[in-house]
Amino acid sequence: MGQIIKGKPVADAISQTLTKEVENLKVKGITPKLTLVRVGANGSDLAYERGALKRCSKIGIEAAVKELPEDVTQDRFVDELKKINEDKSVNGVMVFRPFPGQLDENVIKYIIAPEKDVDCFSPVNVAKVMEKDKTGFAPCTPSAVIEILKHYKIPVQGKRAVIIGRSMIVGKPMAMLLLNKNATVTICHSKTVDMPKICSEADILVVAIGRAKMIDSKYVKDGAVVVDVGINIDENGRICGDVNTEDCQPKTSMITPVPAGVGSVTSSILAQHIVKACKLQNNL
Amino acid sequence: MGQIIKGKPVADAISQTLTKEVENLKVKGITPKLTLVRVGANGSDLAYERGALKRCSKIGIEAAVKELPEDVTQDRFVDELKKINEDKSVNGVMVFRPFPGQLDENVIKYIIAPEKDVDCFSPVNVAKVMEKDKTGFAPCTPSAVIEILKHYKIPVQGKRAVIIGRSMIVGKPMAMLLLNKNATVTICHSKTVDMPKICSEADILVVAIGRAKMIDSKYVKDGAVVVDVGINIDENGRICGDVNTEDCQPKTSMITPVPAGVGSVTSSILAQHIVKACKLQNNL
Repeated sequence: MGQIIKGKPVADAISQTLTKEVENLKVKGITPKLTLVRVGANGSDLAYERGALKRCSKIGIEAAVKELPEDVTQDRFVDELKKINEDKSVNGVMVFRPFPGQLDENVIKYIIAPEKDVDCFSPVNVAKVMEKDKTGFAPCTPSAVIEILKHYKIPVQGKRAVIIGRSMIVGKPMAMLLLNKNATVTICHSKTVDMPKICSEADILVVAIGRAKMIDSKYVKDGAVVVDVGINIDENGRICGDVNTEDCQPKTSMITPVPAGVGSVTSSILAQHIVKACKLQNNL
Repeated sequence: MGQIIKGKPVADAISQTLTKEVENLKVKGITPKLTLVRVGANGSDLAYERGALKRCSKIGIEAAVKELPEDVTQDRFVDELKKINEDKSVNGVMVFRPFPGQLDENVIKYIIAPEKDVDCFSPVNVAKVMEKDKTGFAPCTPSAVIEILKHYKIPVQGKRAVIIGRSMIVGKPMAMLLLNKNATVTICHSKTVDMPKICSEADILVVAIGRAKMIDSKYVKDGAVVVDVGINIDENGRICGDVNTEDCQPKTSMITPVPAGVGSVTSSILAQHIVKACKLQNNL
C-alpha cells in the first residue's frame, strides 16, 4: 500500500528555511517584497491570494495586491505593470491569469521584468527553464512537484518519468525540470495512443490533465510514485485530483493526495522564488 | 529492408516552393536578405556558409557575410549585431556558434532581434518553440527533421517518438516540435537507463547524441523510422552519423543516411526561415 505523501511537511520545511533567509536579509536592511496583480475579483484568484499573503507574512516577506477593475484597458494594465517593474522595492511580481478578453497576454508577457517574474510568465523565463539556467523562474506548480520529490528523497536520475498533460504552466516545464534532474522523460497528452501502457512504464507519474479521477490503477506500475497535480470538483462537490487515489494507492509506493498535496506547496514555492529574486537583485 | 530516405528531394521541394515565393516578393519590390555573422574562419563554419550562400542564391535570397576577427571584443560584436538588427534591408541573421571565449553567448543572445533570428538563438524564439507560437523560429536542424517526416508522409500524430539527446540545438526543440505535431515524446540522454529498451518502443527514433555509429539494431523497433542527426568522422576518416546504418536498416521501415540525410536539408530550412521572417516583417 502506497504511502500518502502530503504537501504540508514540504511547505513547512521550505518556509522554515526561507524564514531564516529573510531574517538574514533583514539584518542587511533588505525586505523581500511581492506584488500580486489581480484583475477583477474571481473566487479562485482570491483563494490563491489569501494563501499567498498568509504564507508571505509568516515568512516575513512583504506583500501587496494591485487590484485592477475587470474592464481595465490594455494601456492601463501595461502602465501599472511597468510601474511595478521600475519600483525597486518590489522583488517579485505575480500576475493572475487568465485575463479578461480586452487584455492581450501575448503582449503583456513581454512587459513583465523577467528578473521579477516569479511564476514564469515572461518568455525569458520559459527559455531559461528549457536551458537549465538557474537564474530563471519555473512556474510554481511544477517547481512544487520537484520539491516534493526532493523532500521525500525520491530518486529521479535515470528514472522513467511520465507526464500527462502538455500545458505551459505544468506539463512542458515539468518535462524540462525532470529532464534537468536527469530523468528519462515522456510527455503524454490527449492524442496519445494506449496511454495506460505508456504510463505504466513510469517510475514517477505526474498527472496534470484536468479531468476528475481519470487516472486509475491501469495507468500505474507496481511501486510507482504518483504525483497528482489536478484540482477538480467531483460529483459530490468535493475537491479531487486527476487521479483515482483509492484505486491507485495500493499499487504505488507513494502518492500525493488532493487536497493537501501539490497545491499546498505552491505558495511556499512562490515565496522561495521571491526570496531568490530578491537575492539576485541584490547580488547576494 | 528499410527505405533510405535522402534529404535532397526534401531540400529540392522546399527550394522550389521558396523560389516561387521569392519571385512573388520581388514583384512587390521586396528581396529577402540574410546576413551571416562569423567570427574567425574555421573550416566547418566556412563549409556551412558556402552551402547557405549557394542555397540562398539559387532561391533568389540576397546574402551577405559579416566576418569579424577572431579576437573581436564583446562591445564590437554587440555593436555590429545591433547595426544588423536596425538595418531594415536585412530580414534574417544567423550567428555562427560556438563563440571564442571573450564573447559571452548569454549576453549576445538577448541582443539579436527575435524577428530576424532565423536559427533560434534568442530566448524569445526558444520560448515560442515551447509555446507552439508559429511566429517563432525553431533551430534549423530539428525543423529539417520535421520537414523530412512531412515530405515522406510519415505519420506523427499519436506515434511514439523517442529522441536521443537533449541539447538546445537539437534534442529539446526537437521534442517540442514533435509534441506540437501530437507525437507522444520521450527524451533519452546520457543518464538514461536501458536505452535500447526505451528506444525500441519508438515508431520514430531521432538520434542526436554525437557519437559515431553508436546506435545499432538493438535500439530499433521493427518497422521504425530512424532519423540520424549525427555528423561524425569514422575510423576511416569518412563522415558518418550516430547510427550504424547497415545494422539498423533491415529492421527499419525508413532511415535517413549520413551524409545526404538531415544535413542536406538544413540550408533550405534556413532559406525558408528567411522568407518567413521577410513576410512577417512586411505583414504578408
